[in-house]
Amino acid sequence: MVFPQSQNILPKTFQDVHVMIFVGFGFLMTFLQRYGFGAVGFNFLLAAFGIQWALLMQGWFHSFENGKILIGVENLINADFCVGSVCIAFGAILGKTSPVQLLILTLFQVTLFAVNEYILINAGGSMTIHTFGAYFGLTVTRILYRPNLEQSKDKQGSVYHSDLFAMIGTLYLWLYWPSFNSAVSNHGDAQHRAAINTYCSLASCVLTTVAFSSLLQKKGKLDMVHIQNATLAGGVAVGTGAEMMLTPYGSLIVGFLCGIVSTVGFVYLMPFLESKLHIQDTCGIHNLHAMPGLIGGIVGAVTAAAATEDVYGKEGVQGGFQAAGIFVSLAMALAGGAIVGDGRLSHSNCSHPGLQE
Amino acid sequence: MVFPQSQNILPKTFQDVHVMIFVGFGFLMTFLQRYGFGAVGFNFLLAAFGIQWALLMQGWFHSFENGKILIGVENLINADFCVGSVCIAFGAILGKTSPVQLLILTLFQVTLFAVNEYILINAGGSMTIHTFGAYFGLTVTRILYRPNLEQSKDKQGSVYHSDLFAMIGTLYLWLYWPSFNSAVSNHGDAQHRAAINTYCSLASCVLTTVAFSSLLQKKGKLDMVHIQNATLAGGVAVGTGAEMMLTPYGSLIVGFLCGIVSTVGFVYLMPFLESKLHIQDTCGIHNLHAMPGLIGGIVGAVTAAAATEDVYGKEGVQGGFQAAGIFVSLAMALAGGAIVGDGRLSHSNCSHPGLQE
Amino acid sequence: MVFPQSQNILPKTFQDVHVMIFVGFGFLMTFLQRYGFGAVGFNFLLAAFGIQWALLMQGWFHSFENGKILIGVENLINADFCVGSVCIAFGAILGKTSPVQLLILTLFQVTLFAVNEYILINAGGSMTIHTFGAYFGLTVTRILYRPNLEQSKDKQGSVYHSDLFAMIGTLYLWLYWPSFNSAVSNHGDAQHRAAINTYCSLASCVLTTVAFSSLLQKKGKLDMVHIQNATLAGGVAVGTGAEMMLTPYGSLIVGFLCGIVSTVGFVYLMPFLESKLHIQDTCGIHNLHAMPGLIGGIVGAVTAAAATEDVYGKEGVQGGFQAAGIFVSLAMALAGGAIVGDGRLSHSNCSHPGLQE
Repeated sequence: MVFPQSQNILPKTFQDVHVMIFVGFGFLMTFLQRYGFGAVGFNFLLAAFGIQWALLMQGWFHSFENGKILIGVENLINADFCVGSVCIAFGAILGKTSPVQLLILTLFQVTLFAVNEYILINAGGSMTIHTFGAYFGLTVTRILYRPNLEQSKDKQGSVYHSDLFAMIGTLYLWLYWPSFNSAVSNHGDAQHRAAINTYCSLASCVLTTVAFSSLLQKKGKLDMVHIQNATLAGGVAVGTGAEMMLTPYGSLIVGFLCGIVSTVGFVYLMPFLESKLHIQDTCGIHNLHAMPGLIGGIVGAVTAAAATEDVYGKEGVQGGFQAAGIFVSLAMALAGGAIVGDGRLSHSNCSHPGLQE
Repeated sequence: MVFPQSQNILPKTFQDVHVMIFVGFGFLMTFLQRYGFGAVGFNFLLAAFGIQWALLMQGWFHSFENGKILIGVENLINADFCVGSVCIAFGAILGKTSPVQLLILTLFQVTLFAVNEYILINAGGSMTIHTFGAYFGLTVTRILYRPNLEQSKDKQGSVYHSDLFAMIGTLYLWLYWPSFNSAVSNHGDAQHRAAINTYCSLASCVLTTVAFSSLLQKKGKLDMVHIQNATLAGGVAVGTGAEMMLTPYGSLIVGFLCGIVSTVGFVYLMPFLESKLHIQDTCGIHNLHAMPGLIGGIVGAVTAAAATEDVYGKEGVQGGFQAAGIFVSLAMALAGGAIVGDGRLSHSNCSHPGLQE
Repeated sequence: MVFPQSQNILPKTFQDVHVMIFVGFGFLMTFLQRYGFGAVGFNFLLAAFGIQWALLMQGWFHSFENGKILIGVENLINADFCVGSVCIAFGAILGKTSPVQLLILTLFQVTLFAVNEYILINAGGSMTIHTFGAYFGLTVTRILYRPNLEQSKDKQGSVYHSDLFAMIGTLYLWLYWPSFNSAVSNHGDAQHRAAINTYCSLASCVLTTVAFSSLLQKKGKLDMVHIQNATLAGGVAVGTGAEMMLTPYGSLIVGFLCGIVSTVGFVYLMPFLESKLHIQDTCGIHNLHAMPGLIGGIVGAVTAAAATEDVYGKEGVQGGFQAAGIFVSLAMALAGGAIVGDGRLSHSNCSHPGLQE
């Protein structure tokens, strides 16, 4: 590995994305009563392993020159993105896997993610991270389905302090999402656009989440799980379109819709998935990443297709690439998740050493 | 809304202020034993609502061109500032209002704040945020006074872990305060001056807070409420003067005085306000924001007036504007708070759905 | 004090280092069951005092011109570094000292650190912070040895939530370490190199820490103390060499080795130090800062010596300076710690007012 020439001072967005992966995803998953330390600790382990493997895999595919991998800060950001996809999948299988299984999962998912990225080049963007990660994780958790887990509902409950810890994760993801969506945009206008659009979408998403959580619960009480998760759906859904001419109004509307879709998903769709399809989605990643990710892919495709030369400066063909990106990512996630989950994880040692707690 | 031309890469100060509003103010208020999640959750809700409304209101007043509101990153920072003022007012009425009341309060306070800003143009600066927010909140809490709240003192108590969560809020406010005071300064010298002066004032404030907290308590024990709050007073008080030629020595002195004023306020003034004036100031915002804000206004006026052409490059008339700014903000806060508190909040539904806890 | 001319916009690394000192070190030490608030609160107090004293001491030695101390953002970063050294020493004596003793310790350690820096000029770099801080703290804790402390082992235990708070500290130290090691590097290439090398070393260190923690414990369980501490050793060890031509491969190897050394230190060396040498190292700073700091000094010396003109552009004599820096720092830390610990702390009032808990 050698260093490419550096362009400017260390970009702030690098550290923000880094904080999101380790603090954001780590603490978001601490809401389980007896799994707080496991969530943060295992997330730390798999992310640290994943970024090293991602640096190698993405390096071989994207920045391999003269037998050496060029590493710059942008590569570190892309490695963090790739690991973000693994953290999302981790959310679906939280509490059901040993550290060794997690490392095996990370190894294969990072590899598939890098291949997927190589196929898509320039299309998909941040949408790939969420859609690929979520459907990969959901496929794995379907294969690892254990009926007896349903009986230990009390262990899945949360306690007062674990919810406050989870809010640390939620807030850091929410606050740094503008950096996440703008980290690899071109500097200047596109980066500002991405940050402002994401900020608007997230703000609007919080309001509809709270409103629908209150409407759908008995006695108008708010459900903390919705506030911890569905408030972030707005950031996922503008992932692809944020740096385009989505405009703040467009972003507010996307955030508005995603807050509804995600909250309704938590209330009605998640119990259905578990009872009928046997998909035990511990953190509800289907509501937070899978559905908003698909909406984001569609929003991105429409925005790109609608952009004429004089507004946006790129050709309309970008819209078609975006749409194709969704299907390629979906197919790779489902096929990859099925193979990895079946061939590797379900036959490996399921004893769960866990942490000294 | 359209985008103004962007000047440079995404400024770091934007994210810092964002973290202060959501993590800083949110967690600072978790010290109440039974209200931790409500503090973080409701702060999240009102801030997300407030920034959208502030973008519109400040847009109409300050960046309305050809029927469109121009939105840049500076507008997002100003919206965060405006919401900061709402979060401060929230501190006074913490635990006494329902989410719906909070949203109504936010709607009116943001509107009044934007009008106040429009009247003051260029004078007041960050001092307005603290003074306006604090006196608005104190007026509202006076109107919402409920005698029976005094009897449930035990609920107002804190427990061990809630104090550690509150320290997360304190530390992030303390650490990013230099960004808060320098976020809308001109880049270069003024921004560096603002950051350095704020850093010095905050550091000095911690020492006097600890010293006086230890002096005024029985047996020399420290009171955690003082450490969580009074240590921040130094940042409030240099808000206006920080980017001027206050010098590090001047900042150290301002921080020194504010640590004393704020701690003495917690020990002697707060019980007096509650028993005699019926102002139940849950978080002690009178000690942290109101008094240091006024001191900051005076410091700013004196520094501006003292600055001669060759030191500072602006005319001495700025000092007069600063002084006038204090009085306009105070008058608007008291009148606005009285009208909103009386007309809106006290007659609206007081049942408190709260969160599922 | 006057202001030197500012070069550019406020650097992000300044705030990152600031967060590390106050949030990182503060929360890292909250793992003790009955000392959580003391750790964060006293760390806050001593750091706020230390940065003021460090600004003066470093100012007199390094930026004193025409009877005035020039203060820029770089001075604030250096003051934070100096205080970092004090926070490290605090880790060894955690739970054994009163706030007044801590302030006396800070006063002397900051002074000695500034003198040490003045002697070394340009050699040692970040290695000095860790080695000096750790051996100073270890010497003081040896002198303050109290046999009866061994009996109250139960108080030294941790509980579930205190470990999650400690993980906040660990993660922020881990995430911002690239900023720590690159904060005072030259902008551009050297800064990017420092950040990338630190990132690689830290990632690799997490894996060997987890692997060896699992190997050395009964039943393959992980020990949270190792995850909280030894995972950071990789950042310490590349402190000096990170901005040099260490290369990512080199960094991965250094991180790999440090994870092993640090974990083995926690398991075998720490009990030996306490029982035989009467060094009660509460937070295990010998494993996290002292040994990796020495390794870092050696790595820095070797890398500097190996750098030929065409790779690195400096003379090989730098290697010798680095090696000399280690010994000067060690000697000053041991002598200074012995004098301060013996003369000041052990005779001062040992009653421990503590916080109202």
